[in-house]
Amino acid sequence: MHRLDVELGDRSYAIHAGGDLLADPEWLARVLTAPALFIISDDNVAPHYLPSLRAALGQRLRGELVLPAGEAQKQLDTLSRVFDHLAECRIGRDAALVALGGGVVGDLTGFAAACWQRGIDFYQVPTTLLAQVDASVGGKTAVNHPAGKNLIGAFHQPRAVIADTDTLATLPEREFRAGLAEVVKHALIADPDFLAWLEARVEALNAREPETVGETVLHCCRIKAAVVSEDERERGRRAILNFGHTFGHVIEGALGYGQWLHGEAVAAGMVQAMVLSRTLGLLNEEEQRRAVALMERLKLPCEPPALSVDTWLEWMSRDKKATSAGLRFVLLDGLGRAIIRDDVPESRLREVLACEMQSP
Amino acid sequence: MHRLDVELGDRSYAIHAGGDLLADPEWLARVLTAPALFIISDDNVAPHYLPSLRAALGQRLRGELVLPAGEAQKQLDTLSRVFDHLAECRIGRDAALVALGGGVVGDLTGFAAACWQRGIDFYQVPTTLLAQVDASVGGKTAVNHPAGKNLIGAFHQPRAVIADTDTLATLPEREFRAGLAEVVKHALIADPDFLAWLEARVEALNAREPETVGETVLHCCRIKAAVVSEDERERGRRAILNFGHTFGHVIEGALGYGQWLHGEAVAAGMVQAMVLSRTLGLLNEEEQRRAVALMERLKLPCEPPALSVDTWLEWMSRDKKATSAGLRFVLLDGLGRAIIRDDVPESRLREVLACEMQSP
Repeated sequence: MHRLDVELGDRSYAIHAGGDLLADPEWLARVLTAPALFIISDDNVAPHYLPSLRAALGQRLRGELVLPAGEAQKQLDTLSRVFDHLAECRIGRDAALVALGGGVVGDLTGFAAACWQRGIDFYQVPTTLLAQVDASVGGKTAVNHPAGKNLIGAFHQPRAVIADTDTLATLPEREFRAGLAEVVKHALIADPDFLAWLEARVEALNAREPETVGETVLHCCRIKAAVVSEDERERGRRAILNFGHTFGHVIEGALGYGQWLHGEAVAAGMVQAMVLSRTLGLLNEEEQRRAVALMERLKLPCEPPALSVDTWLEWMSRDKKATSAGLRFVLLDGLGRAIIRDDVPESRLREVLACEMQSP
Repeated sequence: MHRLDVELGDRSYAIHAGGDLLADPEWLARVLTAPALFIISDDNVAPHYLPSLRAALGQRLRGELVLPAGEAQKQLDTLSRVFDHLAECRIGRDAALVALGGGVVGDLTGFAAACWQRGIDFYQVPTTLLAQVDASVGGKTAVNHPAGKNLIGAFHQPRAVIADTDTLATLPEREFRAGLAEVVKHALIADPDFLAWLEARVEALNAREPETVGETVLHCCRIKAAVVSEDERERGRRAILNFGHTFGHVIEGALGYGQWLHGEAVAAGMVQAMVLSRTLGLLNEEEQRRAVALMERLKLPCEPPALSVDTWLEWMSRDKKATSAGLRFVLLDGLGRAIIRDDVPESRLREVLACEMQSP
């Protein structure tokens, strides 16, 4: 088991990553320290891991809510249901929520914790690759609005993250792939050595070789923790973690949340961001080819769905990253080197969007 | 015009208090600096002051939403409507909301700003005495849940507060009285000299003499700003601002939000908290009599409604101030000296609640 600390002053917390964590009630009881707890999970995950969490918490468990799995739950109506349950179970200021599941459960639970009684503690227990490498670290919580992804939310740091990599063995294939997209993202934006490391381990990753997957999770958390520690509330550099997301959020929103998994949309979105980076002379053809080759070997979707240029632009203008001055893009100035640009000419963007439409 | 600074590091802000502020579009335009703004108000206030704000903001005004007046609007459904409008008007991260109205509009708008895109700026333009002396300062934002007052919310500081005391001249009598309850609260918890100052000015206050009302607003803001600067997120001392609220929130919730105005419920709640303080030997009879006499001269309700002891206890246990260990009370250890106590024996509390029921 590895422990990694996210340094954020009095909001610092530990990420515990490794195998067999959820099978150890005594250890869990020591990490989940709140005097009263309420678990939120979904109906895919709960049958597997809820019993052992229950055993760990004993009398301190004040209630639980198991939601239908899927992105469609990440919305205000579900949040309202969560609040009803918290009220019913008398969840007070010193209690904590536990998010047991993937990114949807984590984002929703974290936001519920951020708002309930103006903020109570919560723990992240991510059970998908995407949540372990990305969603559960960094304190971004949110629900979706029909007009856009994660439009309603808060920065609220977890008290601790427990990433049991054994949970990834039973993850549906599509979800595992979606998580690999965020893994590749971490390499592309910040760490060329990690990119090479991944290239050398494609077979092990595709086979979910536990040691390799565990090291991968830990390395991504390390990259993300460093970025977040520097810029908790995304006033600057942290935005590089959104690489692929300006395009990806359009795919998710325009097709209806849940059609494409978040990681799938980010994968296709990263390719679009790389094409735009090339158009602007930031990335060369060889670099792009190398990145796309890795993604293809990891069986990630590299082509966006067919959407009209107007649809792309319409949705982009509603994205959180848009300001009244215009759109903001995270681009690659070489592999492993993300930059943020506010000055992309609309004509160049339109070229990229139109060109992508003709792809197979 | 007076300016008062709330010192909170990078969340510091100014309170501007005085007459004629909303009649000066040029001054308003200088204070409301965001490049894009969206106004939220209610149908009592909007006809009076929305036109001059509109004139001040010109092209920067991106939209407005006028809600029905009243506490019933302070709930998740209305918040959801607010988000729909913000999405429709493309309110982005660099835009700001403007809360033009009383405590309900301020709390709702502040919470909407806290959540929209994980937090955008907002300005408080309070137009009731209660909001000017209390609700608009300090960054507490929230909506109600059927199970309790302000159960869903966030700490989110305004960018500036504009308290135009001229707006108080047209305030309905009942609302003005409700605001005076919070004025008395500030004196009782923290400032015996201010208590004496108020006692000497009851007639001027009842006549809404502008100079006196203006000084009163400023003095309350000064007390509150000092308390908030010391303890922004209510981890300790700030809780004294909740004096009267543990009882008051029961009155508001149990009778249905909007039956008693917040300030009215706080007035009766402060008397109950003083009776409890006396029962515990903290306050003497003479002190209690003096405080109640001032409240009566200001025509504040000093008797709680008839509720069963079980109803009181049931609602209190759901209050935010309750922990799994028990109830927390703000009591007076003499006039002008509030203390926080977690160890009030239930038997003493029951005595006070039962006794109050027999009051006329």
